[in-house]
Parts: sequence; structure tokens; C-alpha cells
Amino acid sequence: MRVSAFRRAHFNAAHRLHNPKWSDEKNREVFGLCNNPNYHGHNYELEVKVTGEVDPETGYLIDLGELKQIIYEEVEQRFDHKNLNLDVPEFSDLNPTAEYICYVIWQKLRARLEEKYELQVRLYETPRNFVEYPA
Amino acid sequence: MRVSAFRRAHFNAAHRLHNPKWSDEKNREVFGLCNNPNYHGHNYELEVKVTGEVDPETGYLIDLGELKQIIYEEVEQRFDHKNLNLDVPEFSDLNPTAEYICYVIWQKLRARLEEKYELQVRLYETPRNFVEYPA
Amino acid sequence: MRVSAFRRAHFNAAHRLHNPKWSDEKNREVFGLCNNPNYHGHNYELEVKVTGEVDPETGYLIDLGELKQIIYEEVEQRFDHKNLNLDVPEFSDLNPTAEYICYVIWQKLRARLEEKYELQVRLYETPRNFVEYPA
Amino acid sequence: MRVSAFRRAHFNAAHRLHNPKWSDEKNREVFGLCNNPNYHGHNYELEVKVTGEVDPETGYLIDLGELKQIIYEEVEQRFDHKNLNLDVPEFSDLNPTAEYICYVIWQKLRARLEEKYELQVRLYETPRNFVEYPA
Amino acid sequence: MRVSAFRRAHFNAAHRLHNPKWSDEKNREVFGLCNNPNYHGHNYELEVKVTGEVDPETGYLIDLGELKQIIYEEVEQRFDHKNLNLDVPEFSDLNPTAEYICYVIWQKLRARLEEKYELQVRLYETPRNFVEYPA
Amino acid sequence: MRVSAFRRAHFNAAHRLHNPKWSDEKNREVFGLCNNPNYHGHNYELEVKVTGEVDPETGYLIDLGELKQIIYEEVEQRFDHKNLNLDVPEFSDLNPTAEYICYVIWQKLRARLEEKYELQVRLYETPRNFVEYPA
Repeated sequence: MRVSAFRRAHFNAAHRLHNPKWSDEKNREVFGLCNNPNYHGHNYELEVKVTGEVDPETGYLIDLGELKQIIYEEVEQRFDHKNLNLDVPEFSDLNPTAEYICYVIWQKLRARLEEKYELQVRLYETPRNFVEYPA
Repeated sequence: MRVSAFRRAHFNAAHRLHNPKWSDEKNREVFGLCNNPNYHGHNYELEVKVTGEVDPETGYLIDLGELKQIIYEEVEQRFDHKNLNLDVPEFSDLNPTAEYICYVIWQKLRARLEEKYELQVRLYETPRNFVEYPA
Repeated sequence: MRVSAFRRAHFNAAHRLHNPKWSDEKNREVFGLCNNPNYHGHNYELEVKVTGEVDPETGYLIDLGELKQIIYEEVEQRFDHKNLNLDVPEFSDLNPTAEYICYVIWQKLRARLEEKYELQVRLYETPRNFVEYPA
Repeated sequence: MRVSAFRRAHFNAAHRLHNPKWSDEKNREVFGLCNNPNYHGHNYELEVKVTGEVDPETGYLIDLGELKQIIYEEVEQRFDHKNLNLDVPEFSDLNPTAEYICYVIWQKLRARLEEKYELQVRLYETPRNFVEYPA
Repeated sequence: MRVSAFRRAHFNAAHRLHNPKWSDEKNREVFGLCNNPNYHGHNYELEVKVTGEVDPETGYLIDLGELKQIIYEEVEQRFDHKNLNLDVPEFSDLNPTAEYICYVIWQKLRARLEEKYELQVRLYETPRNFVEYPA
Repeated sequence: MRVSAFRRAHFNAAHRLHNPKWSDEKNREVFGLCNNPNYHGHNYELEVKVTGEVDPETGYLIDLGELKQIIYEEVEQRFDHKNLNLDVPEFSDLNPTAEYICYVIWQKLRARLEEKYELQVRLYETPRNFVEYPA
């Protein structure tokens, strides 16, 4: 019996979109307001989807309390109330677009989950803009 | 022209997670607060996804009014304002985790829908915890 | 400079509406499905409103982190994953309607907040049914 | 690195469900209140999902600002504050069910997006009724 | 013990803003897209607030099931899937702005509620535009 | 006929809570994670409430399209995708707590609205933390 279980979490962070290989002018042209050198910020909302077989002993796919704790350790503790560009090493040379933040979160959670689980991450930058990895 | 149509519904119920083959101690350890012998409860939110070909006469995949009625008869009437463990026969020897509630709902709706439709059920136990069957 | 600050929290609980002075028949007639002897449950959503003067040193009306902690100790720790009728002493002889749950929460929070603050509590039993005390 | 990016938009429109090949009686029977000859209306909520490879120069799958502009030109400008049956040529002989509105929107957006992107459209007629194309 | 109790409901309707004493040009200038002669529509969301003393026998301010039924008879049955300008007599010579729809709903509900209750109505035309009567 | 009309808007910004008269240690103690010297950020959600008499010619309290434009010019254009501490002059020596941001927004909107209107502003820093001015 194969199911998916989802857990939502959130973190509030500052970021700036910028490609250091480009001129300031090109950065402003491509990233617009998101290129503001003084940063701006978001309430990021995270939706973690785990897929696999239900354990007939517990009736759980995965203990969502344990998943919540993993998300706390890997994502909230590192990203919440942080400046993603300056405070999170993964973005020291990776542009913190929603796409790449989502990918980094996927990698961090993937490393903590057992092989038997499939993993997909959805990240809301705003209620109207969001991304999902893997597609 | 293949589409999916979704209908949301909800029910309010009490439940308790418990494996009768285990000691009380192990039940408390595995299920934590959800093992409270006096039950706790949720506003369950249900999202039913039906997939198939649009009928060119109506422009409908399925009459959502009829789907609403099927959900009412199969789910709301049996689960709403009930104690899932005590009042719903399907859970007399099945642990009412979100995963198994979702599966039971899928079975009940599957039996009422024509073969030509695919069916998937998503069940929100809280806005932050939810499951989907089949994966 | 007088402002209001709000903090939302939530708890999941079972309850049953019942007046022990009435016959079973009258209880069923007045409370309907909510009178189910085996209980049902809700994801209660709580909105706490505090009103007063902003502290010019901090720019805060009240530290919302402290308010969150008070709500945790007074409400979540006592009500979450509980049966309100059986596990919460305040309802041993008080019918746990949304109105009275809201009033009990108001009393508990009032006792923990400084006199200088005004307090109002809103309690959502479902997204469509909610109450507020005091009016 | 393959991801999906989503953009939400909305429009407010009137419509009526009606099959001109049927009698008035059959139309009322099949479409019920939705057949009201004087129309009714909805706040339609649109969710556009684009899938493809992230551009390593920008870290974007697609510039969501550009996608927002395409949605504005193709959907909002043509559908918002309109009567779908009378004001939108695509529905002059196509019943504006959620399924067909979703399909028409998919066609309009598909024509504006590069071949390399996959496209899926979800359309909410109400928060409880929605459709997705392609399935 | 004075409390407020709230009940939410919704209806889907078409409407058009128009002042028959003005020229077409002035109507277009003042009401813009909302003046479309073919109508447009909304999912109206209604929030009814009743205030008064809790009945110590029931623990209720008012039976929300009865309030739901009154809202159904007075509002949903008359407004849902209707054209407010053409199908609802109250708007035959009253412009169906959110302000006046809210006021008409307030009058209809006021006539059905006991004198001892205070009544306030909030009407959402969209999630971003809404009104409240009385202020 | 006295009503209130509400308009919601939003902006995404970075900020940091800090009192320059205090030591770094005291700032960390009082403001916790919100004192991060590299800033963090939020999707701020704004709810503007205007109260007054309905104009019988239009049926409007206020043209919500005009209110939307005023909010755009006074709030969104100045605050959206900005660092409140560094990019918004009003916060050069005012701590950008939700309370003070709300107050600054109220002042800016008050200056643009006719005297006859009452004004109240609610500002959501997150869906769970929000403030209102005046109380």
C-alpha cells in the first residue's frame, strides 16, 4: 500500500538575486527589484512530500513528528531569520532563487531520509509564486 | 481530452492511534499524544481527485454535484461528528492513522465511481499534515 | 500610541456537548450530532488579541515570543490532543461549547498578562464557526 | 536539474452552462442552477505550472515576472470582469465549464511558451471545485 | 457573559455596477470594468457576527445550526447562482455594490433574529476587497 | 448609512530589529533571532480599513480602485522588495517592528485620505503574528 505523506513548515529569511559574473546593469535588468543590494525578504512556506509503503505495524508511512524534527534541524534552524546570501554557506556561490533554495533543501532532507522513501519538495516564496523539485 | 476534477469536503471526528498488539508503554512511545486513551480530534479536510475524458455533450468530466453527493453518503454521513475508533466499523481493527483513513475513503469512493475514472484521495489531518492515496 | 497585537495558535481536541440536567432525548434534540456520546473533535484555531501602549524602548506592545510561550503553557499544553470533557478539569461541569472554551482560555490568559493590557480571545471551532470573548 | 515553477492569478467573470442542442428542460435538469439564463459568476483562481530545466546563469526555470505578464495578456485582460459566454469568442460555441475554460487557457498559454517547457493549468471555480489540464 | 459568534457562508453571483441616472460614458468612467453591460461575477463570502449573552442552559449564544439555516433561506437561496441585478428584486433599483449587498443582507437577517441579538455583516467580494455593515 | 470597506495588499521586505542605544548583548537578548545583523525578511500582508458614509450616487464608501492606487504609491512602491532599515527613510531611526511599520503606514495613508474617513491599518508580519493601529 503505497502512499504519500506531506509536512508543511516555514521560515522567514532575507535574500538577494545576483549573478557575480554579470555587470550591475545586467543584474538589475534580469533580476529587477529582486537584485536590491540591501536585500528583501519572504515568509517561505515549505511542503515536504515523502512517498513509500505504509508500515502495517504503525499504519504510518513515516512518523510525521520525526519528519518535523528533521525539517527543523536541516531547514528551519539554518534558514529561519537568516540572510540566505550571507548566513547560509550553501548560497555563498549559488544564487538563492526559489529553484535553488528548493534544490538545496531537497539535498539536505534526502541525506537524512532512508533510501526507501521518495522525496519531493515544494517551496512557496509567496502565495502566488512557488517551485517544486524534482519535477 | 483528459482532465482531472477535484472536489473538497470535510468532516470533524475524534480518534486515537493505538496498536492492540503492543503494550501501553510501546503505544505511548510510538504514538505519543495521539495515543491519549480518551481520544482527541480533528477537522479533517478531504480532496477527491477524479481523472478521465471530458464528455463533449456536457463539457464535464463528472457532475461535481453528483460527486459531492457520493462523498456525502460515503464519507460525511459515516465519519462526521463520529469517533472513528468506536463509531466507524472499518476502524474496529484498523488503526485510524491519516494513511488508513485515506485508504478507507478511497475504497468507499472507488466502489461508487464508474470504472472509467481514475481516483486519488488526499486527506488533511491538519493544515500542516496530510496524506495522499494512491501515491 | 495604542495598538493591538495578535498571536494565533492551535490545538486538536475531542469534545462532546451535553447538559447532564437534561434527558438524553433533549440533549440529542438540542445538540444534535455534537451530542455523540463517543465524542467528535476539531482542529481549534485560537487568535489572541492584546491591546495597550507601545513601549518606545522596544517598539513592541508585548513580546510575541513571550505571549506564544504563555499560550503554550496555558492552552496548548493543557488542551492539545486532549478530550476536553474528560481530560481538562475546567470542563468537568462546564459544557465545552466554543463559547465556554473561549471564556476559559480568556480567564487563563488574563491571569498571566499584566493589568495594563486589554485581552480578547477569538476561537475557531471550524473555519466557518467561531466565537469571540469578550464581545 | 528539472523543476516545476508555479504562478497563481485570478479573474472574476460571469458565465452560464448551456448546451444549445438540448431543450431548456434538459439543460435545467443537467446543469441545474448553473443554467440560470441570466448568468451567475465566480472569482476564478488560476494556477499555472511550467516544467523544465533550470537555467544555470539565472537560477530560474522561467522568469515568473514574464510568466505573470503572459498570463495577464492572455487570460486576465480577456476574461477578467467579462461574461465568458458573451464577451469571450472562444466560448461562443463552447460550453464554459471549468474543464473547457481550463483547456482554453492552456491553449492560449501553450502558444506563448517556448517548446522546451511543459505546461499544466489548474483552475479553481470555487475553493471546493477545481480542475486540471492535462491530467 | 457577553460574546460574539460568527458563521461564514458563500454564494456565487453575477452583477453589474450601473447608475441609470448617469450617461453610459459616466458609468464607464466611475465603475470601469464593473460596468460591463454583460455582467461579471464573484464568489461572495459572507461572515455573519451575532453578539449577546450566553444561555447558561446550552452554553450557546445562538444555535449556529439555526443561524446557518436562516442564512440559507434569506441569502443563499435567493442570491446563489443568480444575477443580482436581474434576479433579486432588492437590486431592481439599487446598485449591487458590495456596500449595498451587505446592507440588504443585514436587513434580511435582522428581520429574522431576535431583538436581543446585535448583528454585523461582513461581505467579501474578493479575498482582497470586502465591506462591513454597520461600521 | 455608515460602513467599513477593506482593501488588502502586500509587500516583501527585509528588516532587522535593533535599538542603537543598547549593547549588542542586550539587543540579542531582547530581539533574539530578529536582531540578526544581516537581516531577515517577511511577506507582509496589509489590511486597510476605511469607515464612513456610503455615497448614494455610487453606492461606494470609497472607490477601492483609488484606495488600491494610494496603497500602491504610499506603501508598495516604497516598501516592496526593500530593506526597511536601509532603504526606507522613516526607519532610519525608528525600529521597524510590526507596530511601528503599521503606524508609519497609517500616517502615510491618513495624509492621502479625505478627513471624512476613519482609518485603521492591520499588518500581518506572518500569518500568526499581526498588529492593528489604532487600537
